[in-house]
Amino acid sequence: MEGEPTRIMIGVSESTIKGYPHASISSRGAFEWTLQKIVRSNTSGFKLLFLHVQVPDEDGFDDMDSIYASPEDFESMKHRDKRRGLHLLEYFVIKCHEIGISCEAWIRKGDPKEVICHEVKQKQPDLLVVGSRGLGPFQRVFVGTVSEFCAKHAECPVITIKRDASETPQDPVDD
Amino acid sequence: MEGEPTRIMIGVSESTIKGYPHASISSRGAFEWTLQKIVRSNTSGFKLLFLHVQVPDEDGFDDMDSIYASPEDFESMKHRDKRRGLHLLEYFVIKCHEIGISCEAWIRKGDPKEVICHEVKQKQPDLLVVGSRGLGPFQRVFVGTVSEFCAKHAECPVITIKRDASETPQDPVDD
Repeated sequence: MEGEPTRIMIGVSESTIKGYPHASISSRGAFEWTLQKIVRSNTSGFKLLFLHVQVPDEDGFDDMDSIYASPEDFESMKHRDKRRGLHLLEYFVIKCHEIGISCEAWIRKGDPKEVICHEVKQKQPDLLVVGSRGLGPFQRVFVGTVSEFCAKHAECPVITIKRDASETPQDPVDD
Repeated sequence: MEGEPTRIMIGVSESTIKGYPHASISSRGAFEWTLQKIVRSNTSGFKLLFLHVQVPDEDGFDDMDSIYASPEDFESMKHRDKRRGLHLLEYFVIKCHEIGISCEAWIRKGDPKEVICHEVKQKQPDLLVVGSRGLGPFQRVFVGTVSEFCAKHAECPVITIKRDASETPQDPVDD
């Protein structure tokens, strides 16, 4: 009766809060919601696909304190980015392993909204779950929202999980 | 481990196709998708809430052939509307009964997008599923879309299930 598991893709990102090298609040919210409300005890009926999109650091803001004196310095920066991405995915994969739900996780680089829609086309999940900071219209104009774009353009059904109001950080644009 | 079931509200509508007094294509699509991809074999983990919103027949188009000669004629028209709404809900409730998933179904009158968001506020489901005809931007301008409004304004996560391209009727605005 069960057949192939329902494949749920979850877009996950790092927290933007300084000195907090973990999953963003909205990513964890989307993941927890999916487990509690959709998967429930039916762990064999679902497979979770975690996609993390790394944004190329165009303005170099994160690297204001770094000095690049050789090609190797750039290599070590790239290496550090990769390590951070792996740390993020490790969090979700370990959780899935504990719960006993099968999963896959991978990293891509680019504009998150474009890359997520592209990966949906490639992987054809049954459902895409994305977290959202739940910003008001005024804030949205400036920061854009990945979730709105995906809800419109992804080639599969999309659920947006808004961040719980009680979890909003000091600056609501942070996550 | 399971606790309270996940409560999924599904907005359902009648077909607009003349002489087809049944559920719309997109309503059935949303229902089938929910069963296949979310509920799967875990019928005890979910409860489905079917909401049908009847639009008051402002222009009386459907009643061009009717003659109203007495207050009773209006009563019989209202009675007929109610019977049609019940016929629609009966379809979904019977299906749920066959599968063994618990459900509730009810009818409201008004503007579907407003009423659905209002009922979400009242019933607080974990998830709202709405079907969509998947119209292009040009068609959308004229017919509006309930799903877009709900995705923006409903106070719970929303999944929009687009009608399968293979099921598009002759006039894509029909459903």
